[in-house]
Amino acid sequence: MGKGVQGMAGAQGAIREVMGKNRLENLTDGIFAFAMTLLVLGIEVPTDADAAAQALSDMNPVKALLVSLYPDITHYMLAFVIIAAFWVIAHSFSEHIRYVDRKLLWLNIAKLMFVALIPFSTDLADTYVQFPNAALLFEANIVIVGALMYLQWAYASKNHRLINPKLPDAEIRHIKVRILAMPAIALVAMGVALTGVTWSMLLFVLAPLIYALPLKKLAG
Amino acid sequence: MGKGVQGMAGAQGAIREVMGKNRLENLTDGIFAFAMTLLVLGIEVPTDADAAAQALSDMNPVKALLVSLYPDITHYMLAFVIIAAFWVIAHSFSEHIRYVDRKLLWLNIAKLMFVALIPFSTDLADTYVQFPNAALLFEANIVIVGALMYLQWAYASKNHRLINPKLPDAEIRHIKVRILAMPAIALVAMGVALTGVTWSMLLFVLAPLIYALPLKKLAG
Amino acid sequence: MGKGVQGMAGAQGAIREVMGKNRLENLTDGIFAFAMTLLVLGIEVPTDADAAAQALSDMNPVKALLVSLYPDITHYMLAFVIIAAFWVIAHSFSEHIRYVDRKLLWLNIAKLMFVALIPFSTDLADTYVQFPNAALLFEANIVIVGALMYLQWAYASKNHRLINPKLPDAEIRHIKVRILAMPAIALVAMGVALTGVTWSMLLFVLAPLIYALPLKKLAG
Amino acid sequence: MGKGVQGMAGAQGAIREVMGKNRLENLTDGIFAFAMTLLVLGIEVPTDADAAAQALSDMNPVKALLVSLYPDITHYMLAFVIIAAFWVIAHSFSEHIRYVDRKLLWLNIAKLMFVALIPFSTDLADTYVQFPNAALLFEANIVIVGALMYLQWAYASKNHRLINPKLPDAEIRHIKVRILAMPAIALVAMGVALTGVTWSMLLFVLAPLIYALPLKKLAG
Repeated sequence: MGKGVQGMAGAQGAIREVMGKNRLENLTDGIFAFAMTLLVLGIEVPTDADAAAQALSDMNPVKALLVSLYPDITHYMLAFVIIAAFWVIAHSFSEHIRYVDRKLLWLNIAKLMFVALIPFSTDLADTYVQFPNAALLFEANIVIVGALMYLQWAYASKNHRLINPKLPDAEIRHIKVRILAMPAIALVAMGVALTGVTWSMLLFVLAPLIYALPLKKLAG
Repeated sequence: MGKGVQGMAGAQGAIREVMGKNRLENLTDGIFAFAMTLLVLGIEVPTDADAAAQALSDMNPVKALLVSLYPDITHYMLAFVIIAAFWVIAHSFSEHIRYVDRKLLWLNIAKLMFVALIPFSTDLADTYVQFPNAALLFEANIVIVGALMYLQWAYASKNHRLINPKLPDAEIRHIKVRILAMPAIALVAMGVALTGVTWSMLLFVLAPLIYALPLKKLAG
Repeated sequence: MGKGVQGMAGAQGAIREVMGKNRLENLTDGIFAFAMTLLVLGIEVPTDADAAAQALSDMNPVKALLVSLYPDITHYMLAFVIIAAFWVIAHSFSEHIRYVDRKLLWLNIAKLMFVALIPFSTDLADTYVQFPNAALLFEANIVIVGALMYLQWAYASKNHRLINPKLPDAEIRHIKVRILAMPAIALVAMGVALTGVTWSMLLFVLAPLIYALPLKKLAG
Repeated sequence: MGKGVQGMAGAQGAIREVMGKNRLENLTDGIFAFAMTLLVLGIEVPTDADAAAQALSDMNPVKALLVSLYPDITHYMLAFVIIAAFWVIAHSFSEHIRYVDRKLLWLNIAKLMFVALIPFSTDLADTYVQFPNAALLFEANIVIVGALMYLQWAYASKNHRLINPKLPDAEIRHIKVRILAMPAIALVAMGVALTGVTWSMLLFVLAPLIYALPLKKLAG
């Protein structure tokens, strides 16, 4: 799509090539917020009234119920924090972007398509928590979101194409490392899942550790 | 509604005839973002535990599962990209609009009504993928959204009624062609569906090609 | 709540009594947009595969399917347009409001509570379309939204408490009439439903006629 | 995460330490609005057609239906007002915040995670209304949201770290009391639920009374 779109935009003058970024941010924030909230639909209220009644009237019913819900709740929390982390990273690079051309726009839409898919892959992973392959699909979803976000930033920052021309190269690299940390964890988790281990998703709890490291040094 | 509303607005003075477009854009962006995210509810987590277990514990379980999900996933992606394309087109003409009168407002609301319907028609089309008529209904939904968007732009741009008076006629026509490309594909797909062919929806993959063509020439 | 809140606000200085209206508008627009989009979940994709298959492979399958869906689709459209009309009216008076105090804030929240309830009452009305009482509950929901909106405007405009002090009294009355038109139709529909007639909801198609009348004269 | 993040931020200069608060407010408002609207999905349209038909064709069918729905409707209203109250409180302190650092950002995300969980805990509480423990879990959810909101404000206001330096200490304390009122009610309700009483959630109707008290005196 690249050349053709660029050419078309060129033929129509510079003014058509760019899009104000505010409205794109509104759509992006909307889809992130909705995807995060829709995750809650993956937590099933127990419909087996007998089992629920037993759990709820148990000696220690709260514990009993929480145990019966824990894959749902755990996956909800992991997925919520992962989407939030992507949103934070998206924010941190979108503040450097000055123009949006059609290619960046569609890379962003492709990314949003896989962000909005996360409530499904989370639901799949918590419903079939005993199958490593269900986690594998969730993790692949995260890898794809991360890869598309990386492509967005690599495209926008190449020769400072669409970003503030004064942004130092070290900062551009720093943002690349920050973007890649999450899909890197997801790739490792996919490797673990392929060995047949369940709960490979727990590797995502490493994310805060990685983001708290002095990443600039890694990137420098 | 036209004359009456115009008359009423006129009787109340020019200031009541227009609506600031920002808040209408907020409602519009909200409904687009929400409709795009709700599409994910059409992708069913398999509830047949036995079949899912077999797929997930297969020799090549990811492939097995993806095959079982592929109508849902394919329709999700098609519908997401179609709504996104409509959003991009809506953005490209709303930036030229200076005033919103009641007629444009209600044309926009009618359009949003059919945009918000897309998660349903997508779900229908992927659940009954073997019936050409289910695809037909989806495609009719797209035709209606496109037609209402065309009416919006034709009304707003007629004699530069509600748009920037300096916008050249060639650009007005160019936007009309861009709006019509998507319902045109949908009409062709409806014709294909009427011959009894399933998967007429795959014709929508032509959309990026059409939008990448130097459309100005077509419109000029 | 009135006196107490007013008093508290007064004790804390005028600055605490008001709330910038922009963020309240964001919440309001968000809930309206979500409620409008959530309506689509009330349209059921047929789960009876046999009946659906028959409808979809019929001689005139589209017609057959649409007939089987028509209460859902009709109610979706009625409810979408009703919520949109409320949003338009809310916009038309919120542009005159200069301050938001706690009482107006909570009247607005109460209104939003019943706006967000509409997807439920719509679903009830279309699932049990043969029972006049289901429509009655939907119509009561509309009456409550309209009444709360009227209370909002009556409170804000009393002695120009929270609105532009130069807004003429005729315009204040005109807005009151516009707000009351929708719950008035709903009240008539409730009366019809109480006589045992189904489809009392079709009376809402009168709404565009009423809003297109030169209401200023009625209000003057 | 505290020291590490602070250190990292410091190493990257003050400019990276802060985030414009507008976009965070957009995400926050989106999740609040969406969580409030999603509550409606917890109100089940009766699927038992026979029982519904009987209720709807009863001598006093509306009353019959409302009685059958009343736990759902009551819980919907309680939860809607509780989330709205949290939103109002969040607004009242976010207007004093001048900078957002990573710690405040992630405290806010953690809070949103439990706000978005409320539609689930509400649905659990109304589906199993006869079990005090179901209410207990809902109330624990409210306590956690309140505690995270308190931590946000305590962190932001400590030594006026992230807030307007001229905000008086009395006002800082006043906001703390306002934040704590809701989780305090929830804690009392948890105590009541532990004694085996159902409908402990009705204690939340005390909230308006508490918020209408001259809280400044309590805080002073």
